[in-house]
Amino acid sequence: MTDTVAQLREALGDAVSTDAAQLDAMRSDKSGHSSGSAPLAVVHARSIDDVQATMRIATQTRTPVVTRGAGTGLAGGAIAGSGEIVLSTLAMDRVLEINESDLLAVVEPGILNGRFNEILAEQGLWFAPDPASKAISTVGGNIATNAGGLLCAKYGVTRDAVLGLKVVLPDGRLLTLGHRSVKGVTGLDLTALMAGSEGLLGIIVEATVRIRREVAGTLATIASFYPGVRDAAAASAAITAAGLQPAVMELIDPSVLRAIDAFVGSSLAQRGNAHLAVQFDGPGAAEDAHRALEIITGRGGDADMTTDRDEAEKLLAIRRAAHPSLEALGTTLIEDVSVPRTALPDMFDAIAAIEKKFGITIPTLAHAGDGNLHPNFIFDGPDVPDEVWAAADELFLAALKLGGTLTGEHGIGILKKRWLGDELGEDQLDLQRQIKQVFDPLGILNPGKVF
Amino acid sequence: MTDTVAQLREALGDAVSTDAAQLDAMRSDKSGHSSGSAPLAVVHARSIDDVQATMRIATQTRTPVVTRGAGTGLAGGAIAGSGEIVLSTLAMDRVLEINESDLLAVVEPGILNGRFNEILAEQGLWFAPDPASKAISTVGGNIATNAGGLLCAKYGVTRDAVLGLKVVLPDGRLLTLGHRSVKGVTGLDLTALMAGSEGLLGIIVEATVRIRREVAGTLATIASFYPGVRDAAAASAAITAAGLQPAVMELIDPSVLRAIDAFVGSSLAQRGNAHLAVQFDGPGAAEDAHRALEIITGRGGDADMTTDRDEAEKLLAIRRAAHPSLEALGTTLIEDVSVPRTALPDMFDAIAAIEKKFGITIPTLAHAGDGNLHPNFIFDGPDVPDEVWAAADELFLAALKLGGTLTGEHGIGILKKRWLGDELGEDQLDLQRQIKQVFDPLGILNPGKVF
Repeated sequence: MTDTVAQLREALGDAVSTDAAQLDAMRSDKSGHSSGSAPLAVVHARSIDDVQATMRIATQTRTPVVTRGAGTGLAGGAIAGSGEIVLSTLAMDRVLEINESDLLAVVEPGILNGRFNEILAEQGLWFAPDPASKAISTVGGNIATNAGGLLCAKYGVTRDAVLGLKVVLPDGRLLTLGHRSVKGVTGLDLTALMAGSEGLLGIIVEATVRIRREVAGTLATIASFYPGVRDAAAASAAITAAGLQPAVMELIDPSVLRAIDAFVGSSLAQRGNAHLAVQFDGPGAAEDAHRALEIITGRGGDADMTTDRDEAEKLLAIRRAAHPSLEALGTTLIEDVSVPRTALPDMFDAIAAIEKKFGITIPTLAHAGDGNLHPNFIFDGPDVPDEVWAAADELFLAALKLGGTLTGEHGIGILKKRWLGDELGEDQLDLQRQIKQVFDPLGILNPGKVF
Repeated sequence: MTDTVAQLREALGDAVSTDAAQLDAMRSDKSGHSSGSAPLAVVHARSIDDVQATMRIATQTRTPVVTRGAGTGLAGGAIAGSGEIVLSTLAMDRVLEINESDLLAVVEPGILNGRFNEILAEQGLWFAPDPASKAISTVGGNIATNAGGLLCAKYGVTRDAVLGLKVVLPDGRLLTLGHRSVKGVTGLDLTALMAGSEGLLGIIVEATVRIRREVAGTLATIASFYPGVRDAAAASAAITAAGLQPAVMELIDPSVLRAIDAFVGSSLAQRGNAHLAVQFDGPGAAEDAHRALEIITGRGGDADMTTDRDEAEKLLAIRRAAHPSLEALGTTLIEDVSVPRTALPDMFDAIAAIEKKFGITIPTLAHAGDGNLHPNFIFDGPDVPDEVWAAADELFLAALKLGGTLTGEHGIGILKKRWLGDELGEDQLDLQRQIKQVFDPLGILNPGKVF
């Protein structure tokens, strides 16, 4: 037992674990990547005090700290390795306040997004950030990655829902950022800066978030099938071009559709090669859905529509089955490029060209409403083959050329570090590193990630 | 002519002005405050190149630079004084791109918000940030102050509408921040950090912003009168408590109402002492307005409602007349506290107590939908009397106690510097100063403002 672990134990008692299985679990996340070896210890923080105590010891002993929620990240941002402390905020999972009149809630970081929404739903309320992982990912993790999801085009990204944060700095000091009011412009917006900072700047220990009232009116949902992925992409573009604003618009390409059929035993591919799910909410939902349906069928799409909520869940279940279906095929590297929504067909063309060049299949999903694509690379074994990295390289550069970004919602973590400079440029990268240094002068927070 | 001015002239020719009247105009803004003396020169930048050239000279000669748009700020953030260069971006006023399919536009910083919206309206589009000053304030200034306005509760603050920025650093280097896609989480979110940074970090020279399609459906507008300001505040609270989401909800207190009557010759105060304007948009607007009307009349409010757009403009014109009406009474110090919306009645009580204690009247307007209040101090002469500062001090501390903030939408500038530490705390203030230093190591950008 190292001196650091001894100090942690003395300060935090049985919140500190060095159980081999637990340490081993900290080496990986949902990215499919692993660190070379296990971390020193896991601290299961139960309170802000625990987090502060951990960070004071980490600073004193110069020990690196990896903050971790549920470990569902897709970019390796919460992977821990040799000599590191894992600071888990998963046990800090209370909802401290739900204020219906001010439409805000105060939560600890470890609450699962889905669980938080269940609690809110009892009062007819909801939290808009809606990553596909919401059943298993924490609100703290959602904020640390500025998580996206299905509803962003209409309801914004996680950052837009965060009013204030309590953050512990590397040396253990507690900061209170932001406010409880809708508006507030006092000083630099460090609350916004923390959103998406991937554990580099501080540890989020409490969040004051905007909540919403459940949207009144019908929920109208369309599931539609097309001959090819470009037809589906063109239909989605035509829907937004008609001035419609779906809450959800999700596209599935042919190889993902076949994977779903194989995994769940369905026969979706008999109806078409590509799938587009479109959902409208609010008072105009049914009318909007009828207009979308006309656009879809006018373009040769084969579509079902429902205003029944259970039936809608069944239609969207096709999309939700995509990730497990792909995981069943091998190790999955889920990419996450984002482009302006009209560039979606061009990006699909670029993916097709890369598939051809490298002789591989890149099953792709897209949040079509906001131009965020998830091309998947599937391979055997734990390590990403060089060829896959080479193909991913071309994919990223294609997205940047189209005015897009390396990562729409998953983050940089360890997975996309090598391309960071391509997007940011050296001047901005340097500035970002200096900002990191202001928060974390010793460089003990999530070292080796992002930069 | 100083050496700095000579260098500017050599590099920028007739973009540089030392005209006494022009320099004098740079000493003040709409805050009612002035600097002690005139700045060195005004550079009327026509291009990014001009901005870069100016900053290279400023860095070389260690000359402070105050970036300025239309000079409509209410906190003194763009006031310039002795030895400073004013870098005006007002002439950089082109709309470079309007992309209806991607719902984004690229603009230069000097375009007026209102003019930009006129251009967008020709295509059935709009830019949601809606400060009351939109006819005279620039989009660059709106971003630099993270401007609020009437629509924030429903449509967000300016930050939420900014996708990407081009920014010139103090040493003249050009950075490209953000992206054209709806989502993007590559590195730290410096785009969000620039919003509301009040000219401290860099010069915004181009902005890629989200635009929206005009909201379909009826616009339903209510003008209502009440016996007192608490009744109006309670009615607004009851409307949001009923689950309704107005686009606009504006409250006017008795002394502002009387000032409007005196200024425009109306007799509004005959119908009541306090006024609440409520506007709904979208497909459910008329239905929502009828529900709001029931709530208002059930509480003894005296209300008119219209679904005619011209008639609606007339009803909202009452609110728009407030600022000129108050300015007619004397020098006006417009305050800008923001509290959680349910704390609005408590904040009005706090204001009443301060009025009583100091024997003064504090005419107050409020964006009731989001809890942002504008208490106004009116006095003779250019200088704020000590008694007004003392009263303002109590006002700010009352807002902070209610979970609010010193400034909801105007910024800190020079006006609220002394209270900054009260809200942020010393640790955060220190961190913010260090971030400023990363961007501006020589401290030449807007020195003496905010921090």
